[in-house]
Amino acid sequence: MASLDNLKPLSSLTLVDRVELRIKDYIKENRLTVGDAIPKEMEFAEALGVSRTVVREALLRLRAIGMVDSKKHRGMVLTQPDLIANLGKVLDSNMLSKDTLKEIFELRLILEMGMADFLFARITDTDFEALERIVAEEQTQNQDATVFAMELEVAFHGTLYGISKNETLYRFQDMLLPVFRYVHETMLPDLYPYDYSGDAFVSHADLLDLLKKGDPEKFRQGMRRHLEPHFERVLQTFDK
Amino acid sequence: MASLDNLKPLSSLTLVDRVELRIKDYIKENRLTVGDAIPKEMEFAEALGVSRTVVREALLRLRAIGMVDSKKHRGMVLTQPDLIANLGKVLDSNMLSKDTLKEIFELRLILEMGMADFLFARITDTDFEALERIVAEEQTQNQDATVFAMELEVAFHGTLYGISKNETLYRFQDMLLPVFRYVHETMLPDLYPYDYSGDAFVSHADLLDLLKKGDPEKFRQGMRRHLEPHFERVLQTFDK
Repeated sequence: MASLDNLKPLSSLTLVDRVELRIKDYIKENRLTVGDAIPKEMEFAEALGVSRTVVREALLRLRAIGMVDSKKHRGMVLTQPDLIANLGKVLDSNMLSKDTLKEIFELRLILEMGMADFLFARITDTDFEALERIVAEEQTQNQDATVFAMELEVAFHGTLYGISKNETLYRFQDMLLPVFRYVHETMLPDLYPYDYSGDAFVSHADLLDLLKKGDPEKFRQGMRRHLEPHFERVLQTFDK
Repeated sequence: MASLDNLKPLSSLTLVDRVELRIKDYIKENRLTVGDAIPKEMEFAEALGVSRTVVREALLRLRAIGMVDSKKHRGMVLTQPDLIANLGKVLDSNMLSKDTLKEIFELRLILEMGMADFLFARITDTDFEALERIVAEEQTQNQDATVFAMELEVAFHGTLYGISKNETLYRFQDMLLPVFRYVHETMLPDLYPYDYSGDAFVSHADLLDLLKKGDPEKFRQGMRRHLEPHFERVLQTFDK
């Protein structure tokens, strides 16, 4: 364990905030990493000249965001914080402002538009099969092209994100999905029924085709048209 | 304040985790929102049949993620959690795995590729002026086109994100920026010097031109070529 020497007593009145920051600094300065033990509550308290209660609160905060955990016989140990899980704790709360909700909706459209290059670089035969199954199922279900099969919609796009082989991206969009749905259903009334059977509309089957025979640029053009109903509504409803 | 009636004592042994979840449920079930007060520590403790210490720890966790705060004379009050600030607490920690770092690098490329429609829908005269100033400064500085002026690079792309008028996107990418730089500088060695003066390369001035005279599709094509050195390195280094 690294020395406590470079932890100096806090000069002004202590707050849990300041102790939290000092502990984080301590971790950085000593280049501690995942698995390393950190000093005991009491040691921090003595080095910083604050009460154990204050240190305890600060450590609880770090624990709440998954930076430390207590292990038997080892005390507090640094853990790998989970970026996306931390985001989820807040997204889950249903307390985001309307602006943030709207921005998250847009963010998901942006991700969908931006990932084409990674799809083409990393798609596998298994991925193609998965997409084909979804498209086949859609075609048996939807005699009427205007029926919006939400489950298959989510499955198709979720599979696309998976093809990027970027776990952070996948979990991020997955976490944004409930917000996306919420905004879609409550904040963005259909301005008019969109013609899903029109010539301009790009279906999932068309996107799959582009993935097979096209390139990232053609795929982006197709995806943009596929997402047109969303873009149209978001730019009309939010920006007007 | 809502009633505590629907909080039933926990049947099995209590953990702070479970109390935390119960409190979150309570908030949701009673449709409490930002600014609403929540019951006192002692009230939760009694309703749930656990010690005040356990409730206290659970509440500290919610405070750590910005869901509640204590106000004078009002006790604990629900606050608007800050999505991006929460992410930052973890990103700041320098403890992300190599895989996550690489995925964050890709994520930023994806955002950059995906936001074109919002730029065209929302760009203002002031935005154009800001971009023009940056491009003009670049042209006086760089006699040699291969010089990579990191500051202006960051300014140009940061301004682009700002043009989206999506605060969540802006702060998100801004927070990812140090990780992007870190990966760029340490994990992605230059495979070969990229020819920034070549015909195929799209400069910031070219991108600005596309914003003025082009459309989202042309801009995406330009941006893709502008980001080619990054894409090439990321797909070669990571995927090989």
